[in-house]
Parts: sequence; C-alpha cells; structure tokens
Amino acid sequence: MKELEERINKDGRVLGKDVLKVDSFLNHQIDPVLMDKMGNEFYQHFKDSGITKVLTVESSGIAPAVMTGLKFEVPVVFARKHKSITLKDDLYTSEVYSFTKKTANHISIAKKYLSADDKVLIIDDFLANGQAVNGLNDIIKDAGASLAGIGIVIEKSFQKGRQLIDKAGIPIYSLARIKAFDNGQVVFEPEND
Amino acid sequence: MKELEERINKDGRVLGKDVLKVDSFLNHQIDPVLMDKMGNEFYQHFKDSGITKVLTVESSGIAPAVMTGLKFEVPVVFARKHKSITLKDDLYTSEVYSFTKKTANHISIAKKYLSADDKVLIIDDFLANGQAVNGLNDIIKDAGASLAGIGIVIEKSFQKGRQLIDKAGIPIYSLARIKAFDNGQVVFEPEND
Repeated sequence: MKELEERINKDGRVLGKDVLKVDSFLNHQIDPVLMDKMGNEFYQHFKDSGITKVLTVESSGIAPAVMTGLKFEVPVVFARKHKSITLKDDLYTSEVYSFTKKTANHISIAKKYLSADDKVLIIDDFLANGQAVNGLNDIIKDAGASLAGIGIVIEKSFQKGRQLIDKAGIPIYSLARIKAFDNGQVVFEPEND
Repeated sequence: MKELEERINKDGRVLGKDVLKVDSFLNHQIDPVLMDKMGNEFYQHFKDSGITKVLTVESSGIAPAVMTGLKFEVPVVFARKHKSITLKDDLYTSEVYSFTKKTANHISIAKKYLSADDKVLIIDDFLANGQAVNGLNDIIKDAGASLAGIGIVIEKSFQKGRQLIDKAGIPIYSLARIKAFDNGQVVFEPEND
C-alpha cells in the first residue's frame, strides 16, 4: 500500500536494529482516515473468503480491525492481555511471548464470541516473530473455528513470523513489508499486488 | 440514540446494582456498523466546536473514538494505562481510580501528540464517576490545550460523573443515559434531542 509506505518513510522512526516506531499514526496517535483506507485494502483482498469475524489483540490492533470489520459488516473481537490469568471456564486463553519486552502475556477471548461456524480474519498492527498471530490461532483452533486469513499493517519480513505463516499455508496480506532497516532507513519489499 | 438504547435492552446484561455488561457489542466484541453510526452522532453534535483532536483511553474507548475521528478527519490519541509509572519528561501523566476494580491506574500521553493549539473532544465508552474523564482533563490542562466537549457512549446518570461535568460547565453529549437499573431492567432518561 503505497500511501502507507510513504507515511512510514515520512513519520516512522527506526530505533536500533529492528524497531520501527509509528506512534504518530498507528500505535498511540491514530490517523483514522488512513485506518479507513487500510480497512478497505483488507476488505478488497479477503472479500471472497467468507469472513464472519475479525479477531485482533488490544490495544494497537483495534483501530485497523474495527475499520476492517466495518467494510465486511461483521463483528470484531479483541483479545484482552493479562500479565497472569486464572483459568476460567468461559474463556479461551493462550500465551504470547513478546521478544521486544521480553515478557509473556496471556491473551483471552470469551468463548461465546467465537464459534465453530466462524471463518476468522486476524488483523494486527505488526508482524515480527508471529507470537500474537500464533496465540490467536491457538484460540481459533480451541474454538473449532477456521482461520481464513491474516491481515497485517506492517510486516518486518526479516523476522520469522512471515516465514512461519507461509509454511503453514495460511493466506496472509501485509500492507507494508519491510525487508530491512539500512542505516535508519526503511527498505521495503517490492509490492506484489 | 434510539438504536443504542434498543441494543442495550436486547444485548446488555445488568449485574448487581450498578454494572451493565455490554461486551457483546462494545467492550470485547465490537459491532463496527454501530460504532460508525455513533461516530456520526458525535460528529453531528460537536461539528461546530472546532475540534482538532479526539482523546480516549485504551482499550474500550478506541473503537468509538476512531470512528468519531474519521468523521471529523482529525487524529485520535489514546492514553495508555499503566499499573505504575516512572516519570518521564516526554509524557503527560495522570492517575485514574477505578471504583469497579478498586485499583488506581496511571494514564499517559506522549507530549508531542497534544499541544496548546488543540481543541479536544474526549470520547469514552462509559461515564460513571468521571474518573477517566478527570484524568484526561488533567492531561489536557497540563498541555495547555482546551477541552471542547465530552462524548460518552453509555452514561450511568445516577453516578456522580455527569453532575461533576455539568457543574464544571463542560459540554457533554451521551448517546444513552441510564437513569436506573430496576430489577435487572435498564431505565433510560428521556431523550432530549
């Protein structure tokens, strides 16, 4: 998505070897007009996949997920993060390790909001090592639902998440794919559609 | 907002004396089509107030705030919650006490995303005792920005938040105003516009 790549070049800040800060339009301050366009991009890509539900993780995934859900006119569910979790019968739970923060979070979704009939589109702001996507996919499996696809705003293609998803044969569409950070500059993969 | 009141009657669950669970369309599962209509309601009400920024608190405020920001075509900033906070020069911070959870949270906003030129519309999912609104207002004051209005999805009018805001003379618009819970049923205030 050309407009997103331009925005990353303009407003993103590269920190160290593998961190991109985009809190001016995605993670803390949000540009809702851009989110709306992203929602449309995801819709155009997955519109024939029979999506019945959009799934994400709080908090940064919520804005792009809700805009995507609006285009599909399907419910959006956001998994809640917890430091620790007491097992409850009415929750699906999974563990998500954050390499950036070096901590494990638990995520949970109320069982009543995910059923075996659901065809789920996962939407998230970043894909790095694929931990959040894995956690959500575990929950989808527990519910007996099916994962129809994954939509990512910014993919760091040099980390292992993308490879794992491709290997599992899951359809994935990332709006911006970062090949590398080169001296504080962002190098994108060539656009393929 | 008639449609919201009907949805609360249909899908809301009253717990005890003062808790309304709406996690089927607002707090956990989100109905994005309803959020879009809410954004439009807030826009219609505040469209002549010169709003430059929408402010909310993660996570449940994000969906209605982003839809509202989309109508105004202005940035949305969500305050982050922390259990504790180490003072940082680049953050505005404030304390928010939750009567429901009986814990104090800190909320923070990066200084660069709020300036003295901003006319802010606060959007939040619930208004009860007004703690979150107070916390955000403290941050707005610290930034030298001005608070142009408050938009609330569901107001529990029998708790003290509404009264405090009216007393302070701040324009407020709530899409659903709950007068009381009567035997597990929701009693709404009469609509005034």
